[in-house]
Amino acid sequence: MSILVVGSVAFDSIKTPFGEVDDVLGGSACYFSTSASFFTDVSLVAVIGDDFPQEHIDFLSSREIDLAGLQRSAGKTFRWKGRYDYDLNEAHTLETHLNVFETFKPEIPAAYRDAEYVFLANIDPELQLDVLSQVKNPKLVACDTMNFWISGKREKLIRTLEDVDILVINEAEVRQLAEEPNLVKAAEIVRGFGPRILVVKRGEYGVLMFGEGSIFSAPAYPLDEVFDPTGAGDTFAGGFIGYLAATRNLDEHNLRKAIVFGTVMASFTVEKFSLERLKEIDYNDISDRYKKIKLLTDFADLD
Amino acid sequence: MSILVVGSVAFDSIKTPFGEVDDVLGGSACYFSTSASFFTDVSLVAVIGDDFPQEHIDFLSSREIDLAGLQRSAGKTFRWKGRYDYDLNEAHTLETHLNVFETFKPEIPAAYRDAEYVFLANIDPELQLDVLSQVKNPKLVACDTMNFWISGKREKLIRTLEDVDILVINEAEVRQLAEEPNLVKAAEIVRGFGPRILVVKRGEYGVLMFGEGSIFSAPAYPLDEVFDPTGAGDTFAGGFIGYLAATRNLDEHNLRKAIVFGTVMASFTVEKFSLERLKEIDYNDISDRYKKIKLLTDFADLD
Repeated sequence: MSILVVGSVAFDSIKTPFGEVDDVLGGSACYFSTSASFFTDVSLVAVIGDDFPQEHIDFLSSREIDLAGLQRSAGKTFRWKGRYDYDLNEAHTLETHLNVFETFKPEIPAAYRDAEYVFLANIDPELQLDVLSQVKNPKLVACDTMNFWISGKREKLIRTLEDVDILVINEAEVRQLAEEPNLVKAAEIVRGFGPRILVVKRGEYGVLMFGEGSIFSAPAYPLDEVFDPTGAGDTFAGGFIGYLAATRNLDEHNLRKAIVFGTVMASFTVEKFSLERLKEIDYNDISDRYKKIKLLTDFADLD
Repeated sequence: MSILVVGSVAFDSIKTPFGEVDDVLGGSACYFSTSASFFTDVSLVAVIGDDFPQEHIDFLSSREIDLAGLQRSAGKTFRWKGRYDYDLNEAHTLETHLNVFETFKPEIPAAYRDAEYVFLANIDPELQLDVLSQVKNPKLVACDTMNFWISGKREKLIRTLEDVDILVINEAEVRQLAEEPNLVKAAEIVRGFGPRILVVKRGEYGVLMFGEGSIFSAPAYPLDEVFDPTGAGDTFAGGFIGYLAATRNLDEHNLRKAIVFGTVMASFTVEKFSLERLKEIDYNDISDRYKKIKLLTDFADLD
């Protein structure tokens, strides 16, 4: 089953303790759709400038991502420049140039309007709500957001969340959105805004999923080389929603498997810059790592 | 099987966002021994001053902790004063008064010298090594340490670690001890110093256990009321080593169960100040929470 994703396609310039790259392919919708494409079909809605090279279009097409919703506008593609120190959990933004993204107004092609699975990547909550007004009757709506919208467009964001089934955000953002320091309490408050499932991303500490009367904890896969965490969260979401859409099953059991597939995908992304590592792997690599996470977490029932 | 623990007995004065207490019972050996006493017999070696009240002696005795090694010296008991803000992962030390602890030289009573399980709580690594010279042929030696000793007595600490089977320390301390920011690499370096098992405490993010060719990840139990994290690490170690000593089995399977029991014990300690919560629970509470952690982490094998 096809997923519709709306978000950013960007050029990233990144410096980590392990290396430095300029103007590599990035953006939430790129990471999400590439990751999800290992599980199901994806339709991407985003905007690029006239400087966006055919090479990247070819790559996304090679992943069988439907690009009919990829608008090309006059001007430059969105650019982000950031730096990470040894604490790879924290990105330091050096420059943000919205460029063509500044006036981006998502137009959902007619063919996508009956999408059953929708992922609203981290964009203005008003645009997220506008996207939802253009789709007919999705089975599942998931979204991401960030501190910038939580503080700057709180009311609009909370309105959007009313129509969202799954919210996928960072730990500090859950606390900020709920205005509550305890994570378990904060999760209940945020679920009260609308999403019946809250997925809390904790970087190298993994993920907590809060549902109705249940919590699931998944660790991150411990890596001896974390090269660049950029895109890990969107890659996680791509694997998570991708698996759900592929299996068309939203029960707790399957949601948990989906969380682990998301974790697996994110663990590959951080091993190299940009989407380089995702370009190398296949489904065998994914299932191998899924099994390793199972071994990492297994312990015996109480006798 | 009995455990010998050497560490501190203290009075703590603590302020958290949720309350404030003065001169309550604390110290690494107190938390460890109380926690371990739910699983097996414990013999405690520590020092107290002439201000230490009978009430606390009575409590420790009620847990059937052997106090023959609890020395009483002229002077005041060790006192620690600390504060936590909403980020409960970080303790801010306001005052430390070593008092009688300053000249503490552990003397292991003859009856304890054939202890099979030894836990060296966070004290001077030279004293830890001295304790090991007094015991005959322990089956398992576990120890804790802290940043103060890693920076101040690095060579002595590394010497002590040669004789240690299990090191239980905080995440930042693993990185500091290994002089390596990547945790997986740092764990291998620290295991190279001697301990065949390294248990990394990550506060609210749980625990990672590194063994020969295996890693185990256990989450912390998500609590909607974390009242005071003081003693969580030592309580964890008490449950972990306590279960190992009670079951006399050091295989990977049992080590993982022991980690989860440690996690369970720590989750109770943080619910109230001092040892108050541990005074209320029984083994049924412990096994209930063990089962909840199983539910929290379970996901399906790959088909």
